[in-house]
Amino acid sequence: MKFSPLLAELISSLTCLPGVGNKSAQRMAFNLLERNREGALKLSSVLHNAMEHIRHCERCRTFTEHPVCEICQHPKRNSSGLLCIVESPQDVVAIEQTSSYQGMYFVLMGHLSPIDGIGPADIGLDELEQRLQNEPIEEVILATNPTVEGEATAHYIAQLCQQFDIGASRIAHGVPVGGELEYIDGNTLTHAFSGRRKL
Amino acid sequence: MKFSPLLAELISSLTCLPGVGNKSAQRMAFNLLERNREGALKLSSVLHNAMEHIRHCERCRTFTEHPVCEICQHPKRNSSGLLCIVESPQDVVAIEQTSSYQGMYFVLMGHLSPIDGIGPADIGLDELEQRLQNEPIEEVILATNPTVEGEATAHYIAQLCQQFDIGASRIAHGVPVGGELEYIDGNTLTHAFSGRRKL
Ligand SMILES: [Zn+2]
Ligand SMILES: [Zn+2]
Repeated sequence: MKFSPLLAELISSLTCLPGVGNKSAQRMAFNLLERNREGALKLSSVLHNAMEHIRHCERCRTFTEHPVCEICQHPKRNSSGLLCIVESPQDVVAIEQTSSYQGMYFVLMGHLSPIDGIGPADIGLDELEQRLQNEPIEEVILATNPTVEGEATAHYIAQLCQQFDIGASRIAHGVPVGGELEYIDGNTLTHAFSGRRKL
Repeated sequence: MKFSPLLAELISSLTCLPGVGNKSAQRMAFNLLERNREGALKLSSVLHNAMEHIRHCERCRTFTEHPVCEICQHPKRNSSGLLCIVESPQDVVAIEQTSSYQGMYFVLMGHLSPIDGIGPADIGLDELEQRLQNEPIEEVILATNPTVEGEATAHYIAQLCQQFDIGASRIAHGVPVGGELEYIDGNTLTHAFSGRRKL
């Protein structure tokens, strides 16, 4: 004898969420049933809407429920000549929160990873190539993560830019502002030294 | 600039799940959109069904989509004369998995907690009283948790049973089978000693 069929189905469906195992799913199911049925019904309807309507922006590939996202529709950004390449939509949000960048984006939704079978076409480099060819882009800013895969991806895209005679730059890596030197890892310190600038 | 409105709504709706903050909700939303839209649509529909149809069993108060749960409908269990009192539906499942109990249940859906304003009526003791009065119950087994509130609740129900001249027993507390003595907390050890049985 176990939970009622519908309750068992609810618990098993909740395990589709990343990081949620059977025990957490049970806790979630009981919590929602006991204390937050309204929130759960809202989540049910938003989940449905989101899965049905959120697709990738036709220009930058970020997630959006519109054919072209808000940033890509912005006239000033379109005429900036700047294209920033990031790995994920979260990266766009992080950069936007600084209010220091007013150009366009291209979201790879991942990075090159031959070991996992993820090649150039899987991260939208065909579309990127078309944009480099057809749009008046003056500089590509490579803001992929400072990981082995992120660096390899940045390197690959830099070569692509060279083909179209477009300048490519990499965001600076170094000691975070406010960070204490003694707690920074060696790799970052090496970057900080090799990227030093004259005062 | 932030996430698209629908994506922002999805992230905020996911935080209705217990233990899920904004960062985990973001991770969940992206994971579902990128890798498991089918699972998310399934979850959406099951969530809706569960919240609309799962109510409390009219006899034992556990969660079920039927008016009376499967265990309460069982003729053999109904004639057993045994009624086990537990705090939550998870406790029923734990006991059922041992296959060692063949009686009925009553699920309090909590415990007495005057500090939080949870009194006898909130944990169904009115209904329990009616069952004690009207059904041929021979023994009430108190299987509330061995916590301060669980003990107080068990004590309260034991007094109720006395009024109806029904025997009440408390499940044994002691060293878990396979547990090593040196790692058991003192409170449990005290229980184990005071509950010792002659061999
Ligand atoms: Zn876009
Ligand atoms: Zn029942």
